[in-house]
Amino acid sequence: MKTNKLSVGIWTYGKCSDRYVSDGYKPFLDFDQRIEKIKSLKENCGIELNYPNDLNEENYKERMCKLSEAGLKVSVINVELVCETQWKHGSFSSFDSSMRELAILRTKKAMDIAEVCNCNTLNLWLGLDGFDYVFEADYRKGWNYLVEGIRECAKYRPNIRLALEYKINEPNMKCYINSAGKALALCLLTGCSNVGVTLDFGHSLNANENPAESAALLMGEKRLFHVHINDNYGICDDDMPAGTVHWPQFIEFIYWLDKLGYSEWISVDIYPYRDEAQQANQATIDFVRFVEKVAANLKVDFFDGTFPKGMSITRLIEAFKHLE
Amino acid sequence: MKTNKLSVGIWTYGKCSDRYVSDGYKPFLDFDQRIEKIKSLKENCGIELNYPNDLNEENYKERMCKLSEAGLKVSVINVELVCETQWKHGSFSSFDSSMRELAILRTKKAMDIAEVCNCNTLNLWLGLDGFDYVFEADYRKGWNYLVEGIRECAKYRPNIRLALEYKINEPNMKCYINSAGKALALCLLTGCSNVGVTLDFGHSLNANENPAESAALLMGEKRLFHVHINDNYGICDDDMPAGTVHWPQFIEFIYWLDKLGYSEWISVDIYPYRDEAQQANQATIDFVRFVEKVAANLKVDFFDGTFPKGMSITRLIEAFKHLE
Amino acid sequence: MKTNKLSVGIWTYGKCSDRYVSDGYKPFLDFDQRIEKIKSLKENCGIELNYPNDLNEENYKERMCKLSEAGLKVSVINVELVCETQWKHGSFSSFDSSMRELAILRTKKAMDIAEVCNCNTLNLWLGLDGFDYVFEADYRKGWNYLVEGIRECAKYRPNIRLALEYKINEPNMKCYINSAGKALALCLLTGCSNVGVTLDFGHSLNANENPAESAALLMGEKRLFHVHINDNYGICDDDMPAGTVHWPQFIEFIYWLDKLGYSEWISVDIYPYRDEAQQANQATIDFVRFVEKVAANLKVDFFDGTFPKGMSITRLIEAFKHLE
Amino acid sequence: MKTNKLSVGIWTYGKCSDRYVSDGYKPFLDFDQRIEKIKSLKENCGIELNYPNDLNEENYKERMCKLSEAGLKVSVINVELVCETQWKHGSFSSFDSSMRELAILRTKKAMDIAEVCNCNTLNLWLGLDGFDYVFEADYRKGWNYLVEGIRECAKYRPNIRLALEYKINEPNMKCYINSAGKALALCLLTGCSNVGVTLDFGHSLNANENPAESAALLMGEKRLFHVHINDNYGICDDDMPAGTVHWPQFIEFIYWLDKLGYSEWISVDIYPYRDEAQQANQATIDFVRFVEKVAANLKVDFFDGTFPKGMSITRLIEAFKHLE
Repeated sequence: MKTNKLSVGIWTYGKCSDRYVSDGYKPFLDFDQRIEKIKSLKENCGIELNYPNDLNEENYKERMCKLSEAGLKVSVINVELVCETQWKHGSFSSFDSSMRELAILRTKKAMDIAEVCNCNTLNLWLGLDGFDYVFEADYRKGWNYLVEGIRECAKYRPNIRLALEYKINEPNMKCYINSAGKALALCLLTGCSNVGVTLDFGHSLNANENPAESAALLMGEKRLFHVHINDNYGICDDDMPAGTVHWPQFIEFIYWLDKLGYSEWISVDIYPYRDEAQQANQATIDFVRFVEKVAANLKVDFFDGTFPKGMSITRLIEAFKHLE
Repeated sequence: MKTNKLSVGIWTYGKCSDRYVSDGYKPFLDFDQRIEKIKSLKENCGIELNYPNDLNEENYKERMCKLSEAGLKVSVINVELVCETQWKHGSFSSFDSSMRELAILRTKKAMDIAEVCNCNTLNLWLGLDGFDYVFEADYRKGWNYLVEGIRECAKYRPNIRLALEYKINEPNMKCYINSAGKALALCLLTGCSNVGVTLDFGHSLNANENPAESAALLMGEKRLFHVHINDNYGICDDDMPAGTVHWPQFIEFIYWLDKLGYSEWISVDIYPYRDEAQQANQATIDFVRFVEKVAANLKVDFFDGTFPKGMSITRLIEAFKHLE
Repeated sequence: MKTNKLSVGIWTYGKCSDRYVSDGYKPFLDFDQRIEKIKSLKENCGIELNYPNDLNEENYKERMCKLSEAGLKVSVINVELVCETQWKHGSFSSFDSSMRELAILRTKKAMDIAEVCNCNTLNLWLGLDGFDYVFEADYRKGWNYLVEGIRECAKYRPNIRLALEYKINEPNMKCYINSAGKALALCLLTGCSNVGVTLDFGHSLNANENPAESAALLMGEKRLFHVHINDNYGICDDDMPAGTVHWPQFIEFIYWLDKLGYSEWISVDIYPYRDEAQQANQATIDFVRFVEKVAANLKVDFFDGTFPKGMSITRLIEAFKHLE
Repeated sequence: MKTNKLSVGIWTYGKCSDRYVSDGYKPFLDFDQRIEKIKSLKENCGIELNYPNDLNEENYKERMCKLSEAGLKVSVINVELVCETQWKHGSFSSFDSSMRELAILRTKKAMDIAEVCNCNTLNLWLGLDGFDYVFEADYRKGWNYLVEGIRECAKYRPNIRLALEYKINEPNMKCYINSAGKALALCLLTGCSNVGVTLDFGHSLNANENPAESAALLMGEKRLFHVHINDNYGICDDDMPAGTVHWPQFIEFIYWLDKLGYSEWISVDIYPYRDEAQQANQATIDFVRFVEKVAANLKVDFFDGTFPKGMSITRLIEAFKHLE
C-alpha cells in the first residue's frame, strides 16, 4: 500500500454559510491566513484552489511564490462556475449563448493558468447545469451544449485534463452530471481522452453508488483524474470529515485506488459548518493514514463461490488488530 | 370541501442564499416591499412572520397597522432559533445553559407579542437542536432540556399554542424533532395541551411519511396546530411550489384536512432560489384552489377488502374531468 | 400527441410473492389464464414475455398462435437471468466462467426465438450482476465480463436489439447497471449499435433521475429501446400502477417520448402484491391515455431566462381543465 | 463495558426467498437442524422464535427441552402477524373486525406461551398494518384500532412486555409504526407500561435516525424492550451482518446501550440471502464483541462548546489501536 498524495481544498477554511445562516458560522479568513493553516497540517503537501477567486492572471505569480514557500503544491484548480449569481441558470448548458461562451472562455483561461502553475488538472463542478422543475429545461439542447462546450475546452489544451465532478443535486434540484456512469458516458461522447472524472466520495454515496466500484469503473476506462474525500449520512452532501460515517466503504475505496495504481491527488473536500476547520482537516488526513495501514493489513480474496461472503467482516476486524 | 385559509411566509421574498451563493440569487426586498407583494396575491389573506426580525416589541404597533391596511392577518409567528450564528450549537437543547435560557426567554417574549397581535400560534422550528457527528451529543440531556424548556414556555401562556415544526435534518445533519411521531411523543411528554405540531408537507415527505396519514394522526390527538405547504423530490427540503412534484399525495392531504375539520391556517413555505417569488407563491395558492375543486369532485371509499385498490387512480382521473 | 403502443408484462398476473409471504398473496394463474386476462384489457395490444419460462423452443409455435388469436403482439422478450437459484452469484459478470457462458448461450437462444417470433428486442435485466458486501466483488473483472458478454451476444444477431434495464439495487444490494448514465456508458463501450437501454420509470426514480431527462439523453444517443411504466414512493421499487404517486414527472415523460419521436413499445411492469392485477393493469393503461390527453393540451415553453419558471404548474393546471 | 447478552433469530437459517427467487437461495432446514447450528455458535446463548411456527401450544414442552439441552434461552417470541397470506390487509389495524380479533387472540396466546416458557417479551412487527396507495386507508380508524388492540393485549398479562418493532415500509409501502418517535407515541397513548419498542438497528437507519439517539430516547422513557442488530446501505432493509456498512454508528449504539444500563437481549436479525447463514451470524456476534472492546477503549466527552467536534474521529482511531 503506497502513501497517498494528499491535498486540502482552500474553501474548507471558509465562513461556512448555509441557506439559513447566510453570514456563516465562522469568521472570514483571507488567503494568507488559510495558507498558514494548511501549511501547518501534518502529512499534507497539496492545496486545491479556485480560478479566478484564489488564483488568476493578476495574482498567480505572487501566490505561487507563497505556496512554494509554504511547501504546498497546487493539486487541482477548480473553475468557478456555480458560486456567483451570474451562473444561476447554468454555465456550459445554459440556454443563453453568452453564458455558455463565458463558461468556455473562463475554462480556457483557467487552463492557461493551470499550465503556467504546473498543474495538469482542472476540476469542473457544474452544479447549476441542470434544472429545478419538470418542463423547465430542454434536456437535449442542454446536454448537447454540455458535450460540445467541454469538448471545445478539451481540445484547446490537450495536455490539461478536465475532471468532471458529478453530483446528483444541489444547487439545482437535479443536475445533469449526476453519477459516475453519466460522467463516464459524457467523457466517451466528447471523444477526448483528456476529459475525465472527479470522484467525490460523498457524492458517490449520495448517488447510491459504492465508491470503490465507481473508482474501478473509471480507472479501467482511464478516466479517474481526481478524488475528493469527505463523508455524509447518505442523503445530503453533508461534507463531513472522512471517517465520520462510512468505514468499510472508505477502506475498500483506498484499497482499490491502490490496487488500480491510482497515483493522482486525493483532496480533502469538507465543509465543517459548525466545527473547527483545522482539526477537521487534520482528522480527515489522519483517517486516511490510518486506513492505509488497515488496508495494508487486510487479506482480500474476492468471492469465488466458496462460502462465506461474510468473511470480509471477519477479515476487516483482523486487519484492525495489531495496529501500532 | 371548505375553502382553506391561506397565508404566505414573508421569507419567501428573501434573497434566497444557499451555501454556494451566500449573497443570494435575488435582490433584497424590505418589509414594506414584501407586504406590497403579498397584498397583491390573489386568494390569500394571511402572512407568517418571524420574531424578532419581522415583528418585535419596537415595531409591532406600526407593522400591525400596515398589515391591517394591507388586509393581511398574522397567521403564525415563527420564533427565530436557527438563523443567527449564536444558535450554532442549539437553542432549547443546547449544552450551554445560557443559550437554553435565551431560547426560553425569546419564546416567551414572542408569546407576548403574539398575544397583543391577536395571533394564537407560534411556530418553533428547531433546526439546530440536534447534532452532526456521532459521539457529539449527550442525547438524554439534550432531549430532556428540550421537553422541559418547551413545557416551561407552554405553561407561561396556556392560551398561546406552540407548534413544533419537525424536520429530519438541516442545518444539523440530524435533528431531534425529526418526524410526526417524535413531535407527537414530545407533545405528550410535556403534558401540555397547547404544545402541538406544524406539519410541513415537504418535511413529511423527507421523513418518508405520507402527509395525509401524519395529518390524521396529529388531528386525532388534537395536536395539528399549523400546516406549511411546498413540494420536493423526496430527498432534500427543496421547498418548491406545491404541485411541482406530488399530486395524489397533495390531493389526499387536502382531502383529509377537510375531512378532519382542520380550520387553521395553511401557510405557503417555499424558497424559490432561482424562481420569481411572486409567481411561485401565486402558483402554490392556485394549486391549492385547484386541488380543493378536485377533492370536492372525488369519490372516496376506503378499502374494505373488495378489490380493487387501484380504483383510487381511476377515481382520481375522474375527479379531474369536468372541472370548469 | 400520438397514441402510444402499449403492452403488458405477463408476470403482472403472478402470485406476487415477497420475502415474507413466499407463497404469494394471490393464486397461481397459468399461461392461458393470463392471456385471457390480457386479451380483455382495453387499449392494449401487446404482451411482454420471458424466455424460457413463457416462450421457448418447445412451445413458441403453439403459444404464438394463441397470442395471435388473442390479438396480442409480443412486444419484448425478457431473458431470465435472475429468478432462478442458479443465478445467485450473477450471470454475465459471474466469477464462474460456466455461468457466464450459460448466460451468453441463453441470451443467444432467446435472440433466436425473438427472430422467429417477429420480436426485435430482448430485455436484459441483470439484477444479480452486482454485489452485496464490500470486498466481495472484483469490480474490474465483473464489469469487463459484462461488456464482453453483451458485446458477444449483440454481434451474434445485429438485427435483434438488446435493451439493458438498469436498476440501482435488488436482488443484489448494489447492481452494476444502476443508472441511465451507466447503462449508456456500457452501450458505448460495447461499440454495438444494437445495445441500448430499457428505461423503467420507477427504476429511474429510484436512481434519483428525472425520467424525462433520462429518456431525452438516451433517445439523443439512439439508445432508448424500450420503456417500462409503473410508479413508486422513490425509495424502493414498489412497482405500483402508474399514477399512484408521480403525476407531473409522468406527464413530462410521456410528453418527451412523443417530442423525441419514440415509437417503440411501452410496457406495463407492475407487481400488484395485494391488489387485483387486472384492474391495476387497466388503471395504468387508462392513466397513460389520460396523460396523453393532458400532454396534448399542454403549452410548453422551456425556460429562457424570462421569469417565472413556476409557470409550468399553472400550465399543468390549465391542461387538466376542459378535458372531456 | 459489560458483555451483552446475545441471541439469534431462528429465521436467519431460512431459505431466504425474495420476490424474484420465491423458492429461496438455500435449502430448507428444519427446527432441529437450526438448533444444531445455533448451538454451535460461539458467544451466543439465546434464540428468538416465532409463535406459532416455531413454538406453540402443541410443541412448546418438547421444544423447550431441546433448547434447554442445547443451552439456549428463549430471548423473545415474535408473534406472526405478517408472513401468512391471511394478514395481507393487516392485523391489529385491519378494516376487518374478524382479522383484528384474530390478531388480538393470537397475541394473547403467544403471551400465554411466553409465560410458560419463561420469556417476558413478545416482539410485534406489524409490517402489513399500513397501506400501499393514497386514498386506500382510513388512517384514523386504522391507528385507533392499533392503539386499542395493543392496549387490550397489554392489559391481558401486564407481566409480559409487548415490544413494537418499527419499520418505515415493507411489505406495505408505508407502515403505521414507522419510526422510534411514532412507536414511542403509540406506547404513551396505550397508557400501559408494558408496551415498549424493539429497536432494529437497520430499521432505525432506514428511518434516517441515528440508532444511538433513538436508543437513548427510548431508554429514557423506559420503553426500550428489545434490540435487533444487522446492517444495510441506508435505503432498503438489506438485513446484512452487523459491521458490513456502519461502524461509528454501531460503536456509538453499543456505547449508549451500555451507558444507559441496557441489560436486555440483543438479537441477531439478518437475512443472508446469498451468504452462508452460520458464518454470517458468527461474524455479527464477533463484530459485537469487537465493538465492545473498542467502546471500552474509547474516551468520550460530549461536545461542550470547546472545539473541535471532529475529535471524535481521532478518538475512534485511538480506540482501535492496542486491541489485542
